[in-house]
Amino acid sequence: MKAVVTQENLARALNIVSRIASSRTTLPILSNILIKAEDGKLILSATNLEVAITGSIPAKINREGVLIAPARLITEFIANLPKTNIEINASDNKITITAGNYHSVVNTVAADEFPVLPEPKTKISIKIPISDFKKAVAGTALVASNDTTRPILTGVYLHTFNSVLYMAATDGYRLAEKKVLPLDKEISAIVPASTLSDVVRIISDEIKEITVNFSDDQISFVIGDTVVTSRLIDGNFIDYRQLIPNKTDVVATLNHDEFIRITKISELFARETAGSITLKVDADTSTLSIRSITSELGENNSEAEATVKGSGTITLNSKFLLDALSQIDGDNVKLQFSGKLAPALLTADDDDTYKHIIMPVKS
Amino acid sequence: MKAVVTQENLARALNIVSRIASSRTTLPILSNILIKAEDGKLILSATNLEVAITGSIPAKINREGVLIAPARLITEFIANLPKTNIEINASDNKITITAGNYHSVVNTVAADEFPVLPEPKTKISIKIPISDFKKAVAGTALVASNDTTRPILTGVYLHTFNSVLYMAATDGYRLAEKKVLPLDKEISAIVPASTLSDVVRIISDEIKEITVNFSDDQISFVIGDTVVTSRLIDGNFIDYRQLIPNKTDVVATLNHDEFIRITKISELFARETAGSITLKVDADTSTLSIRSITSELGENNSEAEATVKGSGTITLNSKFLLDALSQIDGDNVKLQFSGKLAPALLTADDDDTYKHIIMPVKS
Repeated sequence: MKAVVTQENLARALNIVSRIASSRTTLPILSNILIKAEDGKLILSATNLEVAITGSIPAKINREGVLIAPARLITEFIANLPKTNIEINASDNKITITAGNYHSVVNTVAADEFPVLPEPKTKISIKIPISDFKKAVAGTALVASNDTTRPILTGVYLHTFNSVLYMAATDGYRLAEKKVLPLDKEISAIVPASTLSDVVRIISDEIKEITVNFSDDQISFVIGDTVVTSRLIDGNFIDYRQLIPNKTDVVATLNHDEFIRITKISELFARETAGSITLKVDADTSTLSIRSITSELGENNSEAEATVKGSGTITLNSKFLLDALSQIDGDNVKLQFSGKLAPALLTADDDDTYKHIIMPVKS
Repeated sequence: MKAVVTQENLARALNIVSRIASSRTTLPILSNILIKAEDGKLILSATNLEVAITGSIPAKINREGVLIAPARLITEFIANLPKTNIEINASDNKITITAGNYHSVVNTVAADEFPVLPEPKTKISIKIPISDFKKAVAGTALVASNDTTRPILTGVYLHTFNSVLYMAATDGYRLAEKKVLPLDKEISAIVPASTLSDVVRIISDEIKEITVNFSDDQISFVIGDTVVTSRLIDGNFIDYRQLIPNKTDVVATLNHDEFIRITKISELFARETAGSITLKVDADTSTLSIRSITSELGENNSEAEATVKGSGTITLNSKFLLDALSQIDGDNVKLQFSGKLAPALLTADDDDTYKHIIMPVKS
């Protein structure tokens, strides 16, 4: 193989593709990037067996062929070269890279040891505006579990319900659901949350839309010239809609920033109690107050004005509450609950397209 | 004690002073900040027994007194409060802090357990423009050793020589010297490099000058309203001037950015050899080329144009070379050496107020 590309194009593509190549893998071949030269393009691929990624850049191809190169070395090396043309020449077990006064020989192994990349048969294809996609992933992947003994909880459930596409996830302690867009197709797929986070990370500013292709056991995301393909998680997602409270005894609506501030301050005093803080909604004083106590450090009581219906207290984990508040849009947040044992529901005051549910801590 | 201060003042002072309070200490009392209310001021202090820091802010004092508070908790707590007046009220073993709707009680212990802070007797006092001080510390503390079995090498040697103040440091593998300013006083003090780095870290943008006070066994730095006091390191610094080469066989002058670039690229191929890279100065081709080889990854040869006197090769550690290049000013850098075994000298092309010497790797 022999090809000429610009440093800018190659550096950008390597930077994206190399994120999937893993150096911690037990299969050393997966720490490489596969580079194929054909049809006026250089096609770069990497996989960690769960997720595969492919990017392509324009190239002047003098001799078609394929090579593999160590991901980390080649990415850092190309990134440091001056902005000029780069000539790549692979033969036997050597890749020669020349750029101006820079001349390197990188050792390589036969490319046929590289695993075959999946080519999913697309059954349904949809397009999602990039900002909606990012927001839905951020708001749901956050609450997915890391516990691989319950695989379904490590995923985000992409599905349609009453002709609307939703993303939802839960780790058993909290649950988040985001309406994405109206959609007249039948979708039901559990996507590893880590895949979605990987996809979001490689979206550059100029990308306006993402294409998502579903097949029976795989999903792929097309982002400009880059394609990320991932397996789906087997099984049926839990019937989570029944867990969302739809009538509650207590409702408090308050300023979003103020809610974050009093939660952060309360959290400081909740280290000994693993983050447990007690929220009290008081209809008489129209306040939400948060109380935390640690025997060693002291105690704290912070309060904010709120529009209140009903009175009651609930004990929540402060980290979970801050996570929820970080994902809710809008100037005002609505907190709803019914007694100490039922889940709390958090939404924006004027928009319930994002619902965040937190189970209370027993206190 | 009872005092009222603004959130901005208290948050800023706590942020600076709390950096010295350590939570990893074997003496738990040192993870606290001492706060004294007197003479219309709140004086905050912390120490790790090596370094002590004191900052003061204006306050309305209703009752003089002294308290200690857990550094991390109080700093984060005050930082999160709204920009308003804060009332601090200490009695018995409780500190009550009130700010608008925020009300906290922090437990405390008797302040008399806090160690007595040093009050050095200043013998010599000098002033240094802040940019000169920062540059000299950055260029020298970088090469000080972490090896506490040779305490002198963990320090920066502040001293006068021919009526000029210098800072110098060495870890035995490399050495750096910076001319600071002309000075007609006799100074000879070995200051812990970590103290100097701490001092640099708390210098805010509006500070234009630092006052340095020397006593027999202590040094103190006055930065605005903050004073940092540190012990000095006992002993005589090595006679380092004899180690600076003053006549060399080989001289290469080249573009600074280009030198950094070819070093960085060479370093990528030098991981197996612990960073060893071989620099070759060639008078025939007027180039400096750097070569690195690893049996597993491959080899690299990068070259840059240079103004050259003499030819030769030397093997250096790439990290040490990049450290040196990061501290040298100017568009062009001058590299000088004599053969493979003598130290290399790096300076700016047109300014030798900063000298950086690196011992070669035996190859």
